[in-house]
Amino acid sequence: MSTRPLFVVAGIGNGSGTGAAAARLFAQKGYRVALIARNADSLNRLAGEINSAGGEAAGFPISDYSYGATLSVFDNIAAHKWSSAGSSSLRVALWNAGSGVWKPFLDVTEKDVETSLQTNVTAAFAFSRGAVLAFKQNDIDERGKRGTLLFTGATAAIRGNVTTSAFAAGKFGLRALSQSLAKEFGKENIHVTHAIIDGGILTDRSSSYRDEAWINNPDLRLDANSIAKSYLYLVEQDRSAWTWELDLRPAHEKW
Amino acid sequence: MSTRPLFVVAGIGNGSGTGAAAARLFAQKGYRVALIARNADSLNRLAGEINSAGGEAAGFPISDYSYGATLSVFDNIAAHKWSSAGSSSLRVALWNAGSGVWKPFLDVTEKDVETSLQTNVTAAFAFSRGAVLAFKQNDIDERGKRGTLLFTGATAAIRGNVTTSAFAAGKFGLRALSQSLAKEFGKENIHVTHAIIDGGILTDRSSSYRDEAWINNPDLRLDANSIAKSYLYLVEQDRSAWTWELDLRPAHEKW
Amino acid sequence: MSTRPLFVVAGIGNGSGTGAAAARLFAQKGYRVALIARNADSLNRLAGEINSAGGEAAGFPISDYSYGATLSVFDNIAAHKWSSAGSSSLRVALWNAGSGVWKPFLDVTEKDVETSLQTNVTAAFAFSRGAVLAFKQNDIDERGKRGTLLFTGATAAIRGNVTTSAFAAGKFGLRALSQSLAKEFGKENIHVTHAIIDGGILTDRSSSYRDEAWINNPDLRLDANSIAKSYLYLVEQDRSAWTWELDLRPAHEKW
Amino acid sequence: MSTRPLFVVAGIGNGSGTGAAAARLFAQKGYRVALIARNADSLNRLAGEINSAGGEAAGFPISDYSYGATLSVFDNIAAHKWSSAGSSSLRVALWNAGSGVWKPFLDVTEKDVETSLQTNVTAAFAFSRGAVLAFKQNDIDERGKRGTLLFTGATAAIRGNVTTSAFAAGKFGLRALSQSLAKEFGKENIHVTHAIIDGGILTDRSSSYRDEAWINNPDLRLDANSIAKSYLYLVEQDRSAWTWELDLRPAHEKW
Repeated sequence: MSTRPLFVVAGIGNGSGTGAAAARLFAQKGYRVALIARNADSLNRLAGEINSAGGEAAGFPISDYSYGATLSVFDNIAAHKWSSAGSSSLRVALWNAGSGVWKPFLDVTEKDVETSLQTNVTAAFAFSRGAVLAFKQNDIDERGKRGTLLFTGATAAIRGNVTTSAFAAGKFGLRALSQSLAKEFGKENIHVTHAIIDGGILTDRSSSYRDEAWINNPDLRLDANSIAKSYLYLVEQDRSAWTWELDLRPAHEKW
Repeated sequence: MSTRPLFVVAGIGNGSGTGAAAARLFAQKGYRVALIARNADSLNRLAGEINSAGGEAAGFPISDYSYGATLSVFDNIAAHKWSSAGSSSLRVALWNAGSGVWKPFLDVTEKDVETSLQTNVTAAFAFSRGAVLAFKQNDIDERGKRGTLLFTGATAAIRGNVTTSAFAAGKFGLRALSQSLAKEFGKENIHVTHAIIDGGILTDRSSSYRDEAWINNPDLRLDANSIAKSYLYLVEQDRSAWTWELDLRPAHEKW
Repeated sequence: MSTRPLFVVAGIGNGSGTGAAAARLFAQKGYRVALIARNADSLNRLAGEINSAGGEAAGFPISDYSYGATLSVFDNIAAHKWSSAGSSSLRVALWNAGSGVWKPFLDVTEKDVETSLQTNVTAAFAFSRGAVLAFKQNDIDERGKRGTLLFTGATAAIRGNVTTSAFAAGKFGLRALSQSLAKEFGKENIHVTHAIIDGGILTDRSSSYRDEAWINNPDLRLDANSIAKSYLYLVEQDRSAWTWELDLRPAHEKW
Repeated sequence: MSTRPLFVVAGIGNGSGTGAAAARLFAQKGYRVALIARNADSLNRLAGEINSAGGEAAGFPISDYSYGATLSVFDNIAAHKWSSAGSSSLRVALWNAGSGVWKPFLDVTEKDVETSLQTNVTAAFAFSRGAVLAFKQNDIDERGKRGTLLFTGATAAIRGNVTTSAFAAGKFGLRALSQSLAKEFGKENIHVTHAIIDGGILTDRSSSYRDEAWINNPDLRLDANSIAKSYLYLVEQDRSAWTWELDLRPAHEKW
């Protein structure tokens, strides 16, 4: 009985963004997909959609992005009975959860700081722990990997700005984690990578407040499916040439 | 009755490191000195030493580097009755507190992550808030400043490494905060600056585990007094040429 | 009569490295391939190999990487009569030429500096001019591009070190060029990208002085074919998510 | 008969910018000053001004910033007979020469590229060689130094932009040189440092095309004297805490 590769993603919002696009793409590529988010309705809707399309997905809602909740969901995933036959091997984990806050510094509250750090950093430590522990149990595959751990970063991961103190503190911290892990676990054939998303992504939410010119011009905004393709590319890199970090931005983005 | 400039520093360890050296130097330059740390004995000893040397210092112990405790100490400082006559004007604030943790990733606990983020980032947000609010009440001085906010950074602020995931996450986050503040408050003539300390500092603690060759060779380790001088230089920069970031390392450091 | 896409690459060494691997890969993908290098024998051998394998390649030897010679080769390429029918559309240009020099600073000669700057920077300006002028004549393709300009960078593009003053000066300069071009021509749907190759590549040359352990361990050195695949990926990115820069290193590389 | 410290600076423009301000400041601090530039009139005027003010300066015009001319000027300086008694010890060298060009890429000529690379990089290699060879003959002074080599950098040293391809290529290259030298010669107690000037400097030239609001507002533009003070500070750093790089910008600069 064969083993099927498993893709775990945390952070799928309402199902129209990067996490969901990646889930759909990896499902098409034959991965079982474990979806983690706080919103159970979105999870179930996306899982249903993927399953209807011939994939195999399951939702794992969590109450919040606390360290404990984030880590323990890996136990739930490991215990899950998939409908198809065969065991699962966690091969790709995508940390796409995050918490943005854009405010002048004096408007930033203690709660804002804590939420940004907990969601963007602390929970990412827990997620990384769950993923790395699972990867270490894997054999090295034909590409020279035990697993790939992907992080969704942002411009705020490399540049603090006038309204991003709390958000940038979290995203810088996440980038530090990703670099530390890349250096420590590359030696064990675990690939850790960080994508700097430098621009707005077309989602249900951004569509609700952006103008038509932006929505309709593919040179101006990121397509979540294109980001997902870059994640797939990173996963498919073989052991001789791994990327830790790349940036992604629309063709016409000013930067 | 004249106003005296006030220097606030958080993080003085046992009184042999950067925070203490800066406190001594600014006291010599005529600043009143408010010392913040968790260890009341160290605080009192250092305050006593400065006062004996003709300076004016007071200790403000805090129970921990929680957001609330860190912010409220500014109220205590504002309420403090200094022995000399005249009111105080907070002109320089140095965030030198920190929490280091060096461990392989899988040994890093939830508590390690939280401690690093709380001390290195959350408390720095509170400290910055206290400082900025005080600075905004100041006139612009002859150098073109309302105040200077100094952050002690580290190599781990710009590079994650195999045993620094939790520490680097905190120090990256602090650097993000400092850059955001520099951009937002430069326009209000508040100078925010970040020093990357890239090497070991000679302190009571480092002396206890380093060898004689290191201790006795001034080309190999940082002197806390030299760091303090660089902080004084940054404070004395006039409005036309402010530094956000500089690095500091011993002459013979390999980097 | 259809138009065939053309791939131009400068810098193919003796045919065992990155430039040659990219030429082979793009030929397989249906591109005509124009090979530029100083060594006519290597060019002809590689062109012959690609043609024998069913591709279509031609060599364009140049006397040196002067500005003039590098730029004028684009005229030669435009004037070339390909054996198959149909006109060519230059769609991908790879600047892979370079000149490395590793010496203590006081051993670096005027000639070393000039050679590094001419080959790594000045010639790259000429190559970029030739490529951009050609791209501007193209329609925007289905991926939203007029063309892709790829630069092979190195660790020395982001870090000067004790024996790399002349090499790093050239590679930093090349990186500056690539970033400037990416920002200026993204708006015209020309994609410019820079790869930081952070490790040794397995080539005929490196095999001649490296030990067996290194040569035989795919975790330790870059495979030129894997770099070529990353270039193909970058070319295939659609307009919504373009990468300017990524790093590539072997799984076990210490960095 | 005592030895007097010598300060060498290349690039003094018309005497109203950074190089000239540094020359004045180091003259006031007791350094003999050797002025290098292409414009003999400016050199003589500045030398005369410094000498009238009680300093000791001499001009060393060079025909152009070729490698040979730049290097040989160190021989001329060594052979110079100063009016006061005592030999000279070259202790501080400032590379402030540069060549800016701001043009859309397709307007950049071969000559523009070569001029930028020659002046910003090649000549800086020659200047560094002259300075390092002189420093190596010095004893280590009380601050732990044989000498300090200062480089004036720019925003274009860390960021390429739409009209800066040629300028940024030069300034990136210069930065690479400075970092390589800092790492190689720190071990010999030679301090190499690089200042990123991030904003406009008030000079005769900038005054001719800027508006009154900019000229008269010290929060908006750099004062060359303030940059000079930062250079003096860097020179005075002791061996335990050397800065390789700092940025300098006006208080209100948007960045």
